[in-house]
Amino acid sequence: MLFRVEMEVRLPHDMAPSAADELKRVERDRAQQLMRDGKWRHLWRVVGHYSNTSIFDVASHDEMHAILTSLPLFPFMTMQVTPLCRHPSSIREDDA
Amino acid sequence: MLFRVEMEVRLPHDMAPSAADELKRVERDRAQQLMRDGKWRHLWRVVGHYSNTSIFDVASHDEMHAILTSLPLFPFMTMQVTPLCRHPSSIREDDA
Amino acid sequence: MLFRVEMEVRLPHDMAPSAADELKRVERDRAQQLMRDGKWRHLWRVVGHYSNTSIFDVASHDEMHAILTSLPLFPFMTMQVTPLCRHPSSIREDDA
Amino acid sequence: MLFRVEMEVRLPHDMAPSAADELKRVERDRAQQLMRDGKWRHLWRVVGHYSNTSIFDVASHDEMHAILTSLPLFPFMTMQVTPLCRHPSSIREDDA
Amino acid sequence: MLFRVEMEVRLPHDMAPSAADELKRVERDRAQQLMRDGKWRHLWRVVGHYSNTSIFDVASHDEMHAILTSLPLFPFMTMQVTPLCRHPSSIREDDA
Amino acid sequence: MLFRVEMEVRLPHDMAPSAADELKRVERDRAQQLMRDGKWRHLWRVVGHYSNTSIFDVASHDEMHAILTSLPLFPFMTMQVTPLCRHPSSIREDDA
Amino acid sequence: MLFRVEMEVRLPHDMAPSAADELKRVERDRAQQLMRDGKWRHLWRVVGHYSNTSIFDVASHDEMHAILTSLPLFPFMTMQVTPLCRHPSSIREDDA
Amino acid sequence: MLFRVEMEVRLPHDMAPSAADELKRVERDRAQQLMRDGKWRHLWRVVGHYSNTSIFDVASHDEMHAILTSLPLFPFMTMQVTPLCRHPSSIREDDA
Amino acid sequence: MLFRVEMEVRLPHDMAPSAADELKRVERDRAQQLMRDGKWRHLWRVVGHYSNTSIFDVASHDEMHAILTSLPLFPFMTMQVTPLCRHPSSIREDDA
Amino acid sequence: MLFRVEMEVRLPHDMAPSAADELKRVERDRAQQLMRDGKWRHLWRVVGHYSNTSIFDVASHDEMHAILTSLPLFPFMTMQVTPLCRHPSSIREDDA
Repeated sequence: MLFRVEMEVRLPHDMAPSAADELKRVERDRAQQLMRDGKWRHLWRVVGHYSNTSIFDVASHDEMHAILTSLPLFPFMTMQVTPLCRHPSSIREDDA
Repeated sequence: MLFRVEMEVRLPHDMAPSAADELKRVERDRAQQLMRDGKWRHLWRVVGHYSNTSIFDVASHDEMHAILTSLPLFPFMTMQVTPLCRHPSSIREDDA
Repeated sequence: MLFRVEMEVRLPHDMAPSAADELKRVERDRAQQLMRDGKWRHLWRVVGHYSNTSIFDVASHDEMHAILTSLPLFPFMTMQVTPLCRHPSSIREDDA
Repeated sequence: MLFRVEMEVRLPHDMAPSAADELKRVERDRAQQLMRDGKWRHLWRVVGHYSNTSIFDVASHDEMHAILTSLPLFPFMTMQVTPLCRHPSSIREDDA
Repeated sequence: MLFRVEMEVRLPHDMAPSAADELKRVERDRAQQLMRDGKWRHLWRVVGHYSNTSIFDVASHDEMHAILTSLPLFPFMTMQVTPLCRHPSSIREDDA
Repeated sequence: MLFRVEMEVRLPHDMAPSAADELKRVERDRAQQLMRDGKWRHLWRVVGHYSNTSIFDVASHDEMHAILTSLPLFPFMTMQVTPLCRHPSSIREDDA
Repeated sequence: MLFRVEMEVRLPHDMAPSAADELKRVERDRAQQLMRDGKWRHLWRVVGHYSNTSIFDVASHDEMHAILTSLPLFPFMTMQVTPLCRHPSSIREDDA
Repeated sequence: MLFRVEMEVRLPHDMAPSAADELKRVERDRAQQLMRDGKWRHLWRVVGHYSNTSIFDVASHDEMHAILTSLPLFPFMTMQVTPLCRHPSSIREDDA
Repeated sequence: MLFRVEMEVRLPHDMAPSAADELKRVERDRAQQLMRDGKWRHLWRVVGHYSNTSIFDVASHDEMHAILTSLPLFPFMTMQVTPLCRHPSSIREDDA
Repeated sequence: MLFRVEMEVRLPHDMAPSAADELKRVERDRAQQLMRDGKWRHLWRVVGHYSNTSIFDVASHDEMHAILTSLPLFPFMTMQVTPLCRHPSSIREDDA
């Protein structure tokens, strides 16, 4: 099932740059693993913001929750989670 | 260049059902032509709403404006238009 | 999978009372059928409002969308749809 | 009488992990005791958020206030408290 | 149990003045009966608005809902309903 | 003249418990003195919140401002101040 | 006592121009009478809006309510009413 | 030209009282100089808030900006700046 | 002096197309005259919206108000009017 | 392609003045280089705020993102990014 997730990151100004870099590195590794697994279907940057728009394809609500709350940057993000479904006008097979 | 567009439709309660059906039919035809042209890249329904989340890939801001304002349902929609760009962590080629 | 749905109804002031009553009657019949089917798990009134808080248990996002948009009062409702999942502290079996 | 309560938790970034874990442990114990007492009727997670949707069944407004403000995580939560009542269309006996 | 209710009235501009006057007259009669019954404990005007702040004292959430939704002006009002309880610092006996 | 005042308290998480207790004690003393003086007419708790709904009866806007800004918890409160007046439908003498 | 009042006017698009002109004329007459009486102390236009910022000086909350709700344009205005008092830093005598 | 400016002050809880007092003293001196110069035309307190409503009369937008951003409390204030002009119904000469 | 003005247009759905076209034609003529006069300095479309972002350069607040409220589409627009001034970092002469 | 960007700066109260000054100096240098390159087309101050309204002209969404997120003050700014396009009524050649 599909979800649109918008994530906005706010790191505290007093976080050490090395700690921030390490956090971003493990976040990227985790994100790319989820993409290879087919769970994190799409990922785009929002222009001018430290935030993204993503499409997830997961097996259950519980899996969606487990994935989002285990992201390394989760404690520093605000999220909007929107359930999606197939649009009857779509002609694209992988939009379902 | 990429845009996320969220469209919400509100038809007036007193619109004749046949007029509404005809409007939806031409909207669908127009949307599917834009999908075949590769302009309207993704299209999903938002669960429980008469609205969608879409990804567009167009050549310019002017083209994006021309496409959106010429949709048959445009006078009955509110839109949020968000410019996107490639995310450095994406491993998917068609996310650019 | 579980959803919390909040529905608020606004009937136009100029709707004929008999039309409103008929609409409410078929809405109630449809709601009670969904409850008997186990899809509409809980239903409560919000004090002082023509609105409800509901819990749905459906097989997919598509089914949730189909149920909500086919409600007789759908054209007159605004909805908030929130995906839920089991809480690790719950001791109640039917909260999953 | 019934209440819907939505609780969102925000722990300070500089709270020691052991202190956070202890707080969550006593919160869970307290929640489960209230569930066994029949006061905390339902408890669900909101997907992607450190928050829950709950249904309480208490004897008075004073009892509802005493329960919520004595939760161990209360100083770190924002709450929305909504009074509910039986919906005339509900066919489920324990929705009252 | 106590509730604070804020009611704001918006009558349609095209309602006949005689219909509006009649509606206000039966609203006043109903309100004053509820005051004599001790259900509608306090009633104040908000300066510059066609709205009021009220305190109700009722036996249950269901009674509160029944009273508010049966007010003659209910279809033309937006309401905020807030559950209250006794404040430990109050020295006034009838604030409970 | 009458005012409705809604006060919400947020004490910093790092305030020493003894300092918080002392602050609450002097706040309560001050509030009860104002109640005995007839200035603070009503005081209720909002269920589930560290906030109250109050009715004040003062001689002038300047007096209202002086009372509110001299409360011991004032630096930690956000306030909504709404001027009230007698409602023509009220039958209760002390609602004026 | 002093109030700041912000009034925004919205006339229905289908009001006859002659009716609108007559309404504005009686509104202006009423406003100027209140200015000559010293009740409506200041009146300014907000640039680009059909709205104003005003300062009133009245004897009571009841008088403020009576003045505002009897304005000819009242049914077509939304208002924000804010109680003011003398600022200790003001050196201007008529700011009190 | 005229501006309405609303200023709300929030001093950090950990600012030393002597530093806060000194800041308020120089703010008052600066405000009163601007009043004597005729730039700061009116100044009122908002009841129950550490904020004010002010009317400024300046020679240009640049002067308005220079005055506001050089106030000693500027780093601790949020401001709303609204351009005003003469209202055709005003009979008061100094409202222009 | 400079203003940023954002205008959003909403024509009623039941306006005759010929009336709408005539309104847009006179709006365009008026806008282009103001551009030739140097009052309306910049004009851009907002992508996907029937709205614009504009920069005006006028002699006074009264002139700004007169220009905006005399636009043919004014009764059908909502506006945000923001006073601007020269930025010290700008190197462009016509930004003042 | 054109963007309107609104940037609001909030420096932490405890930032050393010399660090703040240095940050502002490199921000100004960077901004002026982008203006000389023709990327940052217009820059204005918003009266009474530490914020600006800017117009950018860039080759792609990716370039816009790279420019904004590499500004020295970016970690201390909130931004609104709005895609613009040529307005058909504009007579000014450099508005495209």
